[in-house]
Amino acid sequence: MPETLICQRNLAFELYEVLDAEALTRRERFAEHSRETFDAALGTARIIAEKYFAPHNRKSDEHEPVYQNGEAVLIPEVKPAVDAFIEAGFHNAGRSFEDGGMQLPNLLSRACFAHFQSANIATSSYPMLTMGAAHLIEAFGSDEQKRLFLQPMIDGRFFGTMALTEPHAGSSLSDIRTRAEPAGDGSYRLKGNKIFISGGDHPLSENIVHMVLAKLPDAPPGVKGISLFIVPKFLVNDDGSLGKRNDVLLAGLFHKMGWRGTTSTALNFGDNGECVGYLVGEPHKGLAYMFQMMNEARIGVGMGAIMLGYAGYLYSLNYARERPQGRLPDGKDPASAQVAIIEHTDVKRMLLLQKAYVEGAFDLGLYSARLVDDEMTAESDEERRNAGELLDLLTPIVKSWPSEFCLKANELAIQILGGHGYTREYPVEQYYRDNRLNPIHEGTHGIQSLDLLGRKLMQNKGAGLRQLLGLIQACCARAAEYDSLSALRQPLEQHLAGLTRVTQALLGDLMAGKVNQTLANSALYLKVFGHAVVGWRWLEQAIRAEQGLAGGQPADADFYRGKLQAARLFLTWEVPACAPELALLEARDDTCLAMQDAWF
Amino acid sequence: MPETLICQRNLAFELYEVLDAEALTRRERFAEHSRETFDAALGTARIIAEKYFAPHNRKSDEHEPVYQNGEAVLIPEVKPAVDAFIEAGFHNAGRSFEDGGMQLPNLLSRACFAHFQSANIATSSYPMLTMGAAHLIEAFGSDEQKRLFLQPMIDGRFFGTMALTEPHAGSSLSDIRTRAEPAGDGSYRLKGNKIFISGGDHPLSENIVHMVLAKLPDAPPGVKGISLFIVPKFLVNDDGSLGKRNDVLLAGLFHKMGWRGTTSTALNFGDNGECVGYLVGEPHKGLAYMFQMMNEARIGVGMGAIMLGYAGYLYSLNYARERPQGRLPDGKDPASAQVAIIEHTDVKRMLLLQKAYVEGAFDLGLYSARLVDDEMTAESDEERRNAGELLDLLTPIVKSWPSEFCLKANELAIQILGGHGYTREYPVEQYYRDNRLNPIHEGTHGIQSLDLLGRKLMQNKGAGLRQLLGLIQACCARAAEYDSLSALRQPLEQHLAGLTRVTQALLGDLMAGKVNQTLANSALYLKVFGHAVVGWRWLEQAIRAEQGLAGGQPADADFYRGKLQAARLFLTWEVPACAPELALLEARDDTCLAMQDAWF
Repeated sequence: MPETLICQRNLAFELYEVLDAEALTRRERFAEHSRETFDAALGTARIIAEKYFAPHNRKSDEHEPVYQNGEAVLIPEVKPAVDAFIEAGFHNAGRSFEDGGMQLPNLLSRACFAHFQSANIATSSYPMLTMGAAHLIEAFGSDEQKRLFLQPMIDGRFFGTMALTEPHAGSSLSDIRTRAEPAGDGSYRLKGNKIFISGGDHPLSENIVHMVLAKLPDAPPGVKGISLFIVPKFLVNDDGSLGKRNDVLLAGLFHKMGWRGTTSTALNFGDNGECVGYLVGEPHKGLAYMFQMMNEARIGVGMGAIMLGYAGYLYSLNYARERPQGRLPDGKDPASAQVAIIEHTDVKRMLLLQKAYVEGAFDLGLYSARLVDDEMTAESDEERRNAGELLDLLTPIVKSWPSEFCLKANELAIQILGGHGYTREYPVEQYYRDNRLNPIHEGTHGIQSLDLLGRKLMQNKGAGLRQLLGLIQACCARAAEYDSLSALRQPLEQHLAGLTRVTQALLGDLMAGKVNQTLANSALYLKVFGHAVVGWRWLEQAIRAEQGLAGGQPADADFYRGKLQAARLFLTWEVPACAPELALLEARDDTCLAMQDAWF
Repeated sequence: MPETLICQRNLAFELYEVLDAEALTRRERFAEHSRETFDAALGTARIIAEKYFAPHNRKSDEHEPVYQNGEAVLIPEVKPAVDAFIEAGFHNAGRSFEDGGMQLPNLLSRACFAHFQSANIATSSYPMLTMGAAHLIEAFGSDEQKRLFLQPMIDGRFFGTMALTEPHAGSSLSDIRTRAEPAGDGSYRLKGNKIFISGGDHPLSENIVHMVLAKLPDAPPGVKGISLFIVPKFLVNDDGSLGKRNDVLLAGLFHKMGWRGTTSTALNFGDNGECVGYLVGEPHKGLAYMFQMMNEARIGVGMGAIMLGYAGYLYSLNYARERPQGRLPDGKDPASAQVAIIEHTDVKRMLLLQKAYVEGAFDLGLYSARLVDDEMTAESDEERRNAGELLDLLTPIVKSWPSEFCLKANELAIQILGGHGYTREYPVEQYYRDNRLNPIHEGTHGIQSLDLLGRKLMQNKGAGLRQLLGLIQACCARAAEYDSLSALRQPLEQHLAGLTRVTQALLGDLMAGKVNQTLANSALYLKVFGHAVVGWRWLEQAIRAEQGLAGGQPADADFYRGKLQAARLFLTWEVPACAPELALLEARDDTCLAMQDAWF
């Protein structure tokens, strides 16, 4: 039976050949784990994803949530799926044994969760949002807040959301208008309107815990005046039982192009002046708290984009193997049988490009998850600090690169299926629609590009950047030991040299105060930086493939050859194609900056 | 009020400054026309498009056609729209006065029709398909067929379709299985199944005339054994009245990602052995007939892609002017007012890129329409032959380039609207979904690339190609008279030199019999060839803009500056970015060709 969620051979390659997941079991926190327990968790995730998540992926698209009497109504298949997810403990995959978790490394939690994202991105969003909200309370909440709100989330009884966006303030969070007034009893009364709140209402849990950004009366202007509040749908009594309905109104649902199974809500807080909220941590630190959790959320979005790409790639691959159509250009005898379309070079191109995008991004996503582990559990302070700094730098890439290129992969999957791919009778068009959200939410592509060039490069005095450049150079040096890889290595080296030169020049301009001019082409910079990162990850994979070919089982030779071919496509087609973009950056091209409103 | 369908200033620029539509009025066929009659027709088209087509564009997406008792049921707004279109005579825009037409040049017919495509691509498809079917009968049908089937189409009573694709034969038409047996009375009995037949059923006309490809009993194998038949939904009596229902069954409707308002049907011909058809022209010439009409259909698809891009561009432009969000990077004072997002350089980039794609393609589409006029009505045999040869060469570009790059424009339009753009509360996501069909129907992108590299380049011993290269060189020479254009001209000259070198090399390989290898990277070739063509069209526009700036009204200066800036983006960002692709082609890169099924 063809694989549909993740190529399991590739997953094993990533975990055990590229990222050395087994090394994690030598750390104290993961000492009770082994490759066997990892594989058992992965196997369970796959089975639940196939059995409970995949079957209603199309149905939840066709029957999107409906607003009824102030509530969002979902198709009945969603609840058994999230129940099975919770029952198996995947919402606590990374949590300690003593807190009822599986105590898995982040790398493995992400790999497990990837199965659910591939099977049904919309249903998988409900637990993902809950895990994000739970981590916020875990990191910054009081003991009381943990007891009343976090513990029920761990128990799977409460779900969560992140409520940031307002009608007039999306990317520009400093402009939010939601207010929070002290009520005198330690709690607050909130008033304001939020939009695009994913999972803002649903019937999947006893309660919904909204993590809401709002401003206190004495808030300084801008991003330093935003505070974080817990605002539950139902108040919670001191004994943990549910109290009365809080003054949070579901004002309506948004109707999206894709990702339809996840409610996107407009929420009114305090229409009746009775919306109770609880301040998390200190006043005015809300955005800082959110940003400390942002790596997690953004890696989650990136992984979602990757898995949608992966699902489309596998579907179109299987289709191309089974669909006969036409003959090769030099075998036009009409009496001969039609060939499977995978024989056509242009179809191979569209499959290989998908493989290059999807498996390149998948490696990067899991590599980032591995960095989270290093940040938390590596042996030395230095290793942990290094991992954190590198992760900060890579986060905008992990979020944006798959959002752009795995969407492109979905576009190619449709093309391989031709007219069929364009119909809702096949799944690939839904992946494409679903994936189009990813360059928008959790910080648009434009925001990611400003974050990278305007902020992350210089963070910690450039420590993350120096580390990354060093890692790529070291990878090239290792690749240089393989003659067969020289054609793959050289374009990366050349690109890296150009990128380094451009980066130094742009940082110099920034330090000289030329802010608008330097950030003008940040989108180009994001692209060339991302291609350097993914190019590096492909060269790493190619090295492992060479090692596998040299020492491995003959049965695996085809797998490794495929890896080398995809690496070749990425490193000799995609990476050198960045040269003209590097040239524009180096020339400080001002075509877009100079354009004026009146000229359009 | 902001423009929504086409920028009228740009339309006038194309027609009267770039393509010299008024010169056409000096030809005998168009002698009774003038700029005033042209503008009157355009104005009528715009009004009908705004009044009857645009208002139900979203509704026909939300309420797609439904299969009921063997018929396709549409929303009620479609019929009044096509009736208004017919009433105003746009289905006969190019036909002679004596045949009841407007006798407009093709350039003007296309420009008029573009308004309907921008307003509602799905509803505009019904008359477009009918015009295509009518032209087939006009060109190859007998007098009797013209009387019984063509005349009612001219009268607006009958609609038409093209019925080519079968479940196992999409791109590979030589493999169709639909059979036609002589009935002994001059008519035929057809038997077979067709899928993806657009407009295959609807309640918009008294009758539907299907133009069906099928094989006669003595058909030679392959593409030379396909014949063309008229198969009406209702038989037509000799006096023109409708007879009984023909044996054509609506087997079902396809449910598409977009373009939902146009029925996409599965039709069964001859389930009861009584499907009557009439041979058009000679036996076994069906595919050749279809291909003689293909230029028209493919330009139509290209124009549709352009107009979807145009509609999205204008919507996102207006949105960007009205939506306040954030502040410029060097003006971060949170107490200051938010700026309109058009002030952000990355938003300017996304708008300017849309402008470059959409207006570049729009110029190319109208240029091609102008070539149709030259092919039909230019003074000398040589001019007419030249125009036809150039048009043949350009057709795969006119079809495929907008399908790819105006879809990309739609992707950018969504991004500008952010979260709102992703909802069905705004129109841009529909344009994106609608446009995704264009790289698939009327010959996929892959088919277009094979048509260009494997067939069109060498057609007429390369006469079209030589002509095109000469035209681009001449344009560069004229541009060289403007110092201000040198930065725009040089990248095109450089690209053209590379393209010429690569083209010669590939044609040499083809002549040496290396067919599979040479066609392996045809997708790359299509891209670099298309960019040369659109780059040329932008340089032409830039020359006119310089002339306009020198001699024009001050009120137009902003318009011309915008043209120059979009030309600059295309010629200095997009065209030089083809260099790495040219290098791959020149190196005869075999990355995709060498990939094997087993390696995936």
